[in-house]
Amino acid sequence: MFFKVEKKSHDCKARAGLLKFNGYEIPTPVFMPVGTQGTVKAIDQQTLKNFNTRIILSNTYHLYLRPGTEVIEHFGGLHKFISWDRPILTDSGGYQIFSLKELRKLTEDGVHFSSHIDGSKHFFSPESVIDIQRKLGSDIVMVLDECTPYPATIEEAVKSADLSSRWAIRSKQSFISTKSLYGREQYLFSIGQGSVYPDLRKEYLKKMIDIGFDGYAIGGLSVGEPSEIMYEIVDISTDSLPVDKPRYLMGVGTPENILEAIERGIDMFDCVLPTRNARNGQLFTTKGKINIRNAQYKMADEPIDEEIGLHSNIVGEGLETSPTYSLGYLRHLFISGEILGIQLATQQNIAFYLWLVKTAREKILSGEYIQWKKLLLDKYQNSN
Amino acid sequence: MFFKVEKKSHDCKARAGLLKFNGYEIPTPVFMPVGTQGTVKAIDQQTLKNFNTRIILSNTYHLYLRPGTEVIEHFGGLHKFISWDRPILTDSGGYQIFSLKELRKLTEDGVHFSSHIDGSKHFFSPESVIDIQRKLGSDIVMVLDECTPYPATIEEAVKSADLSSRWAIRSKQSFISTKSLYGREQYLFSIGQGSVYPDLRKEYLKKMIDIGFDGYAIGGLSVGEPSEIMYEIVDISTDSLPVDKPRYLMGVGTPENILEAIERGIDMFDCVLPTRNARNGQLFTTKGKINIRNAQYKMADEPIDEEIGLHSNIVGEGLETSPTYSLGYLRHLFISGEILGIQLATQQNIAFYLWLVKTAREKILSGEYIQWKKLLLDKYQNSN
Repeated sequence: MFFKVEKKSHDCKARAGLLKFNGYEIPTPVFMPVGTQGTVKAIDQQTLKNFNTRIILSNTYHLYLRPGTEVIEHFGGLHKFISWDRPILTDSGGYQIFSLKELRKLTEDGVHFSSHIDGSKHFFSPESVIDIQRKLGSDIVMVLDECTPYPATIEEAVKSADLSSRWAIRSKQSFISTKSLYGREQYLFSIGQGSVYPDLRKEYLKKMIDIGFDGYAIGGLSVGEPSEIMYEIVDISTDSLPVDKPRYLMGVGTPENILEAIERGIDMFDCVLPTRNARNGQLFTTKGKINIRNAQYKMADEPIDEEIGLHSNIVGEGLETSPTYSLGYLRHLFISGEILGIQLATQQNIAFYLWLVKTAREKILSGEYIQWKKLLLDKYQNSN
Repeated sequence: MFFKVEKKSHDCKARAGLLKFNGYEIPTPVFMPVGTQGTVKAIDQQTLKNFNTRIILSNTYHLYLRPGTEVIEHFGGLHKFISWDRPILTDSGGYQIFSLKELRKLTEDGVHFSSHIDGSKHFFSPESVIDIQRKLGSDIVMVLDECTPYPATIEEAVKSADLSSRWAIRSKQSFISTKSLYGREQYLFSIGQGSVYPDLRKEYLKKMIDIGFDGYAIGGLSVGEPSEIMYEIVDISTDSLPVDKPRYLMGVGTPENILEAIERGIDMFDCVLPTRNARNGQLFTTKGKINIRNAQYKMADEPIDEEIGLHSNIVGEGLETSPTYSLGYLRHLFISGEILGIQLATQQNIAFYLWLVKTAREKILSGEYIQWKKLLLDKYQNSN
């Protein structure tokens, strides 16, 4: 996996980089739309490509349960199954399993859990999760970790991060002793834990670096802690990480969270927020947040987002001939319970998140990142 | 409105025609996807265009209630409101109101009804329905009629059709004494009633022809009567209609219904079946009907419909670079409750219906209609 920082900001830790693997180039910072069950909810693969989506995330836990690895193996891997040739990162399932609470039991060896779909019993170990991801054939494979709950005492945080560290060693062992199944190279990322304790974070990241991975994720954040603490932990973490490897902040976040994390040296993001909020009628636009159901949009004939332009080629290659829909029409679709409302809102929000990181990158390159970030966040704080 | 029959079958009444108005050409037979509330459910306008959809149908009753004519007027008409520049036919709302049953009261003047959304009271007359459709700005305007329920005694059928005939006169009067609002010409179609009584059908169609309309619809069919009776009434009706005007069979139907009606000289169709059944996981394909949830499709790696090719240019100009999804992936989407499943199934079914009438037209032109119809229906009768 090739990674190069092309430019670092003069006044902060933000960096514009380039990731290259398997014949694809990914300019960073990058946002990965979340396709939990092998589909980014309510948007098709072609539209994602038209928007210039470079990489998507999918979930080992969900795909393992449904349709099952045997189905995906039969199809020749996840890329072929979902008709998506560009890169895919698969989450290890750790986060999902630890969200199950009563449905799981942790041991040194791994984690026993019951399916949220049918209650059937399953067991994930660091090794089995590598095996599943080999069968999925994702480009970037994540290690199994325990997502330390928040809040955690320092003793709990140490115990949890110790386990994740031992699992990281086993994951690496398993990864290097196995091979990709479909002739497409796979790369392994670790996940740092350590809760909100700076020294623990540093210590465990050092262990990860000693083991050696293709990239380093920061996990266990955006789990209920105040934003300021998240930013502090991100700041400390990126100080401890090598300059020449990609850094991935898992599951984060709002546009504000993402810009603050970019400022602190993060390269990769994923989050369900753009797609989930779209389904509730909340739009992210270059003018701020919009609740499209509000009566004020009943007669609004301006486009959903002029600056981005749904389907336009500002984000990607795009379809220039596509119609531009108005806010008033989109409101009508939501008020009337029409699926097209969810489709268009999802497109807008995905396009906005891709625009956000793309523009961040341009501003890093032109040396104006901090000023641009302030202007954009002012808009966000003044919108509903 | 220009209409020309380009070729009539040598062995049946099927005809290949050409409709021209407002700068658009519509080869017939044509299928109009139904966009009840100003959106063809779960498919966006650009995809409809990519599939070469020539005209869509929308519903006066629904749009009048929500978003309301004042909103659509503000936007400069329905075309601009929904970002669709191609032709639109609007149903008069008669069918919807008469489906309300307890919520409506019929008088000579018009019909009082309560909104299915909030119970508010409203009144539609032949004149007000023309007025609303002027404000919508649809290309083809339908007269208000009473959709005679099935079964009806001959006395009930006469009484009902008499009322519809008097309303048709008032509609025509109202139409010729008003103008289109947005500089886009509008055309008026009548609706023939008469239940399942051949002589009534003939008599009332003659009245419509005497009044004079741009096109003639056959209403009150596909309301519960056996298919054979529907075909008989269609056959009698087209015998009574002028050769040089388009004939539209409202709300029909299955692929079989459509092919039988084309054989009997019908030019235009609309039906919710392709979109509604898509949402339930029933696909119409060139190989027959498919219930995509069936376990047999779990490992099915063949494309959803090779002959049509989702997004391919067999139906329209199409996007040749779009991915082709497999039946197995589509099944996974439905089993997992993913919206993309509905989107793709809707695309398939709309593409199939457009393919069906397009191919019917080609077979009429090449003189092979009857043979082709038999082959296709055999496939359908042998599928689930």
